[in-house]
Amino acid sequence: MEKKDKESSLGITVKKSEDISEWYSEVVIKSELVDYSAVSGCLVFRPYSYAIWEIIVAETDKRLKKLGVQNVYFPLFIPESLLKKEAKHVEGFSPEVAWVTEAGDTKLNERLAIRPTSETIMYDSYAKWIRSWRDLPIKYNQWNNVVRWEFKHPVPLIRTREFLWCEGHTVFATKEEAEKEIFEILHTWEDICTNYLALPYVKGRKSESEKFAGAVATYSLEFLLPNGRAAQGPDAHFDGQNFAKAFDITFLNREGNKEFAWQNTWAITTRMLGIMVLMHGDDKGLILPPKVAPVQVVIVPILFDATREKVLREAHSIAKELGKHVRVKLDDRTEYNPGWKYNEWEMKGVPLRIELGPKDVEHDQAVLVRRDTGKKETIKIASLSKKIEEALEHIHTSLFEKAEKFLYGNIVDVRNFKDLGKAIKDKKMAHALFCGDEDCEAEIKEKTGATSRVIPFDQKPVHEGKCVNCGKDAKFWIYFAKNY
Amino acid sequence: MEKKDKESSLGITVKKSEDISEWYSEVVIKSELVDYSAVSGCLVFRPYSYAIWEIIVAETDKRLKKLGVQNVYFPLFIPESLLKKEAKHVEGFSPEVAWVTEAGDTKLNERLAIRPTSETIMYDSYAKWIRSWRDLPIKYNQWNNVVRWEFKHPVPLIRTREFLWCEGHTVFATKEEAEKEIFEILHTWEDICTNYLALPYVKGRKSESEKFAGAVATYSLEFLLPNGRAAQGPDAHFDGQNFAKAFDITFLNREGNKEFAWQNTWAITTRMLGIMVLMHGDDKGLILPPKVAPVQVVIVPILFDATREKVLREAHSIAKELGKHVRVKLDDRTEYNPGWKYNEWEMKGVPLRIELGPKDVEHDQAVLVRRDTGKKETIKIASLSKKIEEALEHIHTSLFEKAEKFLYGNIVDVRNFKDLGKAIKDKKMAHALFCGDEDCEAEIKEKTGATSRVIPFDQKPVHEGKCVNCGKDAKFWIYFAKNY
Repeated sequence: MEKKDKESSLGITVKKSEDISEWYSEVVIKSELVDYSAVSGCLVFRPYSYAIWEIIVAETDKRLKKLGVQNVYFPLFIPESLLKKEAKHVEGFSPEVAWVTEAGDTKLNERLAIRPTSETIMYDSYAKWIRSWRDLPIKYNQWNNVVRWEFKHPVPLIRTREFLWCEGHTVFATKEEAEKEIFEILHTWEDICTNYLALPYVKGRKSESEKFAGAVATYSLEFLLPNGRAAQGPDAHFDGQNFAKAFDITFLNREGNKEFAWQNTWAITTRMLGIMVLMHGDDKGLILPPKVAPVQVVIVPILFDATREKVLREAHSIAKELGKHVRVKLDDRTEYNPGWKYNEWEMKGVPLRIELGPKDVEHDQAVLVRRDTGKKETIKIASLSKKIEEALEHIHTSLFEKAEKFLYGNIVDVRNFKDLGKAIKDKKMAHALFCGDEDCEAEIKEKTGATSRVIPFDQKPVHEGKCVNCGKDAKFWIYFAKNY
Repeated sequence: MEKKDKESSLGITVKKSEDISEWYSEVVIKSELVDYSAVSGCLVFRPYSYAIWEIIVAETDKRLKKLGVQNVYFPLFIPESLLKKEAKHVEGFSPEVAWVTEAGDTKLNERLAIRPTSETIMYDSYAKWIRSWRDLPIKYNQWNNVVRWEFKHPVPLIRTREFLWCEGHTVFATKEEAEKEIFEILHTWEDICTNYLALPYVKGRKSESEKFAGAVATYSLEFLLPNGRAAQGPDAHFDGQNFAKAFDITFLNREGNKEFAWQNTWAITTRMLGIMVLMHGDDKGLILPPKVAPVQVVIVPILFDATREKVLREAHSIAKELGKHVRVKLDDRTEYNPGWKYNEWEMKGVPLRIELGPKDVEHDQAVLVRRDTGKKETIKIASLSKKIEEALEHIHTSLFEKAEKFLYGNIVDVRNFKDLGKAIKDKKMAHALFCGDEDCEAEIKEKTGATSRVIPFDQKPVHEGKCVNCGKDAKFWIYFAKNY
């Protein structure tokens, strides 16, 4: 690849409203979140995206540990025979498994799958470890990399052949405990999405066609993106005793009788970074929600020869003070001018910028600029800390509210098939009555291009309503949208 | 694998002094640090080992970030053509590369290596990103998994086909900056090994035969294990401009001239857990250095029906108070008796145990037991916090000193080949004068089974000394030992 001139290619050349795909590709590359790699469909997480991921990991991990989850690490490789133990599971994953067949000069006796997910390798161990009710519950999680060799067009962060995630695999003695955990986990995902990523969602249960390969029921948060397409976010699968039966995960209960265990699986992935970028960004680049921004406030001093020292001294003092409470960066590089720096930090979506010139220092003030609105305000340095704390809160709330307005402004209640077709064509998410039948769902996909997203927990009354497509008795309300 | 009866197989059946290999295998499995997996040579990190690794990662990462290091994530896969770009590098790694050749039903056009280390995939990106002195230094690190398909007998944590590590890959404009960083990194490794793992070492530069494939010079900490074998610990490689030339990593200097960059590579791995177990453990199981122990203090209440509530209330109160400063666990399980619990926590190497019975509660006291010495002491509950803080410090120091005594008690200055041979046979580490010649080193290995470890930074005078093997002029003192 050619080394392009950095300065000339800095700005985004496409409007988000005009070509969101191209806009997105430019934003994720030019903000230095990620880069393409020598391996097709695999991405480099540069420091900026990885720092955001580290914040998400830290906050999620803290919450999971409070729920009693322990972290582990299982091998990357899964022997083919093991992957094939649960029939539905292998059916779902085998088309996109990367296989190791050779090591050094030796051809392996058995192909090894690079984990697309770790049920099979983990449950093989669980079966050995679990003997009695004393060994339960097991609540293990691993933060790792997985590979799903997609043949569809890759989209940075959203659909790549390798991605990062956590995968929780828990085992309980009773169905009730397993079901209770599903909601604890969903609550954790909601907390992270709402309070960190500023991303609203619809939540509920997946249809039979869309549930996880091997699960009894899949629950997820679903995000409607500005391109009118939906993306599945973090999820939680109630596996019932499906895997327990395939892997012989049994335990002696308190009465001394052998029972199959109950299991869950759940995950949050680096895809959330892509959803966040798509949702909040604008024509100048990224807009990062303050809670996950690696730099929350950037200070750009305006330096002239005569006043350089005085301004820099004040800038350092502000940085030191703010550093006690927020993630602050003082951009004192001499090789770039302030205007260049403003553009760079706007591209990188830093929530707040402080401009500090000699006049400001003279008047004990600084100029505070919000990335999301561009609003400028002159603030006394003494009240900067407090103002910044408030502003970061405001930015988070207003990003969330804007996204929420978009989401609910683009959900349409549809009563018949014509309206469903129109809603999908208009890039909306349709809320419709549905019979629940897999063939009917396939037909809807065939005719509209939309897949079902979730059966919301908050069900409006179904009464004696009819399915939006086949006209048979409806079982529930469900969301439809095109998949990203 | 058969489900063995947990109780009957709890204790270690072999003495460390009699068969350390078997002792080690039992300890790592029975303490539930790790387990074997369905993939030969690949290990499961169970919660207990992973929790120790998380502490090492957190402490190391904090120190690296202070040095300006940023975390990233590069793809797991390396196209074969890329891996082959640096001749020495591929020569060193290709015998143990695991190759992906198929994905789904498709045969790949080019084989993909599972990263044995990430120089080649990272430097391909570095070459694109680095244009001028403004882009330097680059100090990137990734915490990830790597695969080296060893055909030697695997040893849990010490030599496995997949392991966890951090790999730092840094780029500088000048040789001086790169060399300075080598010592900053070595200092970090020394800090972690000394102050967290309680592991003493010898440190220095590797010989030409033993240096990293592709490096100009390799520096490492070397550990002498109780089995008389040495293991390489964390390291730092000065790569000079070798990779820069292979990957065309150039930059325009301040004068506008093109130069090749200078690079380092460094790593610390999960092998350190194995070294820690081998060094500190005893016939009862693990002994964990307090700073890395996931549980630093375990409280075992002694419960009788009449006094149960009173004792439990006091135990909870102690746990709450101690929990402010140390990692404490209250073992209030009713299905096991205190004796069983003592054995279990001793096996798991928890540094301190508090025994609390009804008599103790009556007298406002508790019994404090040190895992390393077995020493018991009755302590007033009011002074427990302070006592525990001191005891944890003492345990750390005494583990380190014991290990140090072992290390220095087993290093022998040898003046001639006969003494070298004897030292190696006696499971010592030999400190000898050496000519530095690669053929001479190969001959020593052939004749004694020992490899060179490091050329220590602290060199005793060489004077006009002669090489311990060939008798030619010696260049330096070096350590020899058998490799584990």
